[in-house]
Amino acid sequence: MSQELQELRNKIDDADKRLVSLIAERLSLVARVGRVKSRDGVPVYDPAREASMLAKRRAEAEDAGISPDVIEDVLRRIMRESYNSESREDFKCVNPKAGRVVVVGGFGQLGRLFVKLFKASHYEAEALSRRNWDRAEELLHDAGLVIISVPINSTPEVIGQVSKMMPENAVLADITSVKTGPLETMLRCHCGPVVGLHPLFGPDVQNFAKQLIVCCGGRMPEKYSWVIEQMKIWGANIYNVEAAVHDRAMSVIQGLRHFTTFAYGVNLMSERYDVARLVNLSSPVYRLEIMMVGRLFAQDPALYAEIIMSSKQNLEVIRRYADAVQKCLKLIEKGDEQKFIELFLETREYFGEYAQKFMEESRRLLAVSSDSGRRGEEGGAK
Amino acid sequence: MSQELQELRNKIDDADKRLVSLIAERLSLVARVGRVKSRDGVPVYDPAREASMLAKRRAEAEDAGISPDVIEDVLRRIMRESYNSESREDFKCVNPKAGRVVVVGGFGQLGRLFVKLFKASHYEAEALSRRNWDRAEELLHDAGLVIISVPINSTPEVIGQVSKMMPENAVLADITSVKTGPLETMLRCHCGPVVGLHPLFGPDVQNFAKQLIVCCGGRMPEKYSWVIEQMKIWGANIYNVEAAVHDRAMSVIQGLRHFTTFAYGVNLMSERYDVARLVNLSSPVYRLEIMMVGRLFAQDPALYAEIIMSSKQNLEVIRRYADAVQKCLKLIEKGDEQKFIELFLETREYFGEYAQKFMEESRRLLAVSSDSGRRGEEGGAK
Repeated sequence: MSQELQELRNKIDDADKRLVSLIAERLSLVARVGRVKSRDGVPVYDPAREASMLAKRRAEAEDAGISPDVIEDVLRRIMRESYNSESREDFKCVNPKAGRVVVVGGFGQLGRLFVKLFKASHYEAEALSRRNWDRAEELLHDAGLVIISVPINSTPEVIGQVSKMMPENAVLADITSVKTGPLETMLRCHCGPVVGLHPLFGPDVQNFAKQLIVCCGGRMPEKYSWVIEQMKIWGANIYNVEAAVHDRAMSVIQGLRHFTTFAYGVNLMSERYDVARLVNLSSPVYRLEIMMVGRLFAQDPALYAEIIMSSKQNLEVIRRYADAVQKCLKLIEKGDEQKFIELFLETREYFGEYAQKFMEESRRLLAVSSDSGRRGEEGGAK
Repeated sequence: MSQELQELRNKIDDADKRLVSLIAERLSLVARVGRVKSRDGVPVYDPAREASMLAKRRAEAEDAGISPDVIEDVLRRIMRESYNSESREDFKCVNPKAGRVVVVGGFGQLGRLFVKLFKASHYEAEALSRRNWDRAEELLHDAGLVIISVPINSTPEVIGQVSKMMPENAVLADITSVKTGPLETMLRCHCGPVVGLHPLFGPDVQNFAKQLIVCCGGRMPEKYSWVIEQMKIWGANIYNVEAAVHDRAMSVIQGLRHFTTFAYGVNLMSERYDVARLVNLSSPVYRLEIMMVGRLFAQDPALYAEIIMSSKQNLEVIRRYADAVQKCLKLIEKGDEQKFIELFLETREYFGEYAQKFMEESRRLLAVSSDSGRRGEEGGAK
């Protein structure tokens, strides 16, 4: 290697070392902001500040002659790290007189997160489950908020048991992924404030910053509003929607989605396609596809069986999807290009502005996906 | 807002400004490396240097008490920018005596890229198409390399025409996405060196850095090896595979993939599900799913009709997928949880170590996908 190249590489290494210190400095500044915010009860996530800050940096990047997208992507990545670590701080308590918070099923992953965050916000929070059921009476009799976080099949039964032991004016909430049934059961069993919640994130999430929580109102919103406010302090986005609308959307988002992924994986397996070869020959788009299929099978089969088979509505949605596959297959068998293009354009119209928007967004994501350069490692180069 | 918070924010703004300069500095250093590399004929992409550099930065990050993943992700993002801009440089010419490079169909997006890169590497490179076909004889009669870059349906005819006009010892290559047919046609029509290539990337790629190019050998590799070496100088990863193996994989990677995406989109459209609501209620995984479906419909319907219906093999692959969907549907209709779990575990075994690997990789990608915080903008917060 030429000396010139070596000297340039030394300079790059030096710049990168300064980059490491600068990121460390920024993270520590943001951690201090987090502590001040928690103390003052300011929500962790501040979209307006974020947007104005990014706009300024983008302008500065253009002045420096570099792409604004680089600086935005880099800052978003560093900010994510900040959001992740901000959960370690303590949070303002919105309702210090709320009384005890009991998370039924609070030893599961999601339940534990709720217990942790309520504790970090200076509530008395306790997990209750089969393993400490002997304390149920003691924990529930003067509770201020009871959150049901048990598998969907046990939810009605647990609501029935718990509601008998808790005070009439306490808030009863559930966090199952279906909302109509649990909400009806809660309203029937408990005559006080009731709210259905659905946290739309996976079990490996460490805090609520920027996470979406669906809220289906039940009864006496003025009495459970502090729970919503508290989750906003944690950084959550709250999305209010009717239970039935939520459930229909979930049949697509969860039931159908998991079914198609399952069927696609089963088909690959039955055909014994060589996974390594598919990966090596993947375009970035297909690499993402096979990754999203394969990841399903690293997870709990019983959980997915439960989600897919949880309702009649799911079955209907899946059946109609299977019909659409048959219809599209017939079209391909006939080689009917004209009809294909018609259906394509009709679907484009249905997606409206989202088609183009998704195109742009996916371009960005596919670029990130290629950044990892795994292709090189996996033997693309021969 | 408290004065303390304001002061901290000023410090963050100051750190970010230094970040912008530092990134600009690094990009300019890497651009200089690019110029030195091009001059000396060193390949643009150097996986070993990249890996050792990242390992050092990760260690330094840990010493500074920050997550190694942050610095790696940030550096990969900045490096991507470098790769993108490095295409502007000029490249070493591997075979100065090669003679003229003619790209037939060289006014299309991919063809243009080849013409640009050969010119940047000091070859005489020309695009040929219907619009300047009157120059065909003149350009082809003493060409050193002819690359066919026309739609798949016209490929055999164009190969037939072009091969009659080019010298016997010139290299004939094609870059269509199917390999068996074009390779057979080239070998039949041209008795000199022949190679089939398939660049596995979309039309918006600006240069070859880290991109995958499939290579299916035809005849006289010693005479076309300079073409492969030249593409490596541009940064490409070359993957050697037999044409038939490539084509079977492509029936899955392109034919089946585009079919399932098409059918899924058509199903959403027929059911008139509210796209905005699906987006607002999406988990990160589903957001990615609907994005990858919607993006298809922003593209050219005729192109997708052509890809899906391009071969009998595709139809067979799609038919067997549709059968798998029916089989899985029956299982769900029966509520046969036991059989579901069996198939699930069998598929997990089929994916082998990839299931877990995909899980980890997708986690990283889903985090990036959430970084954008679009959820907030689109009305998640109410």
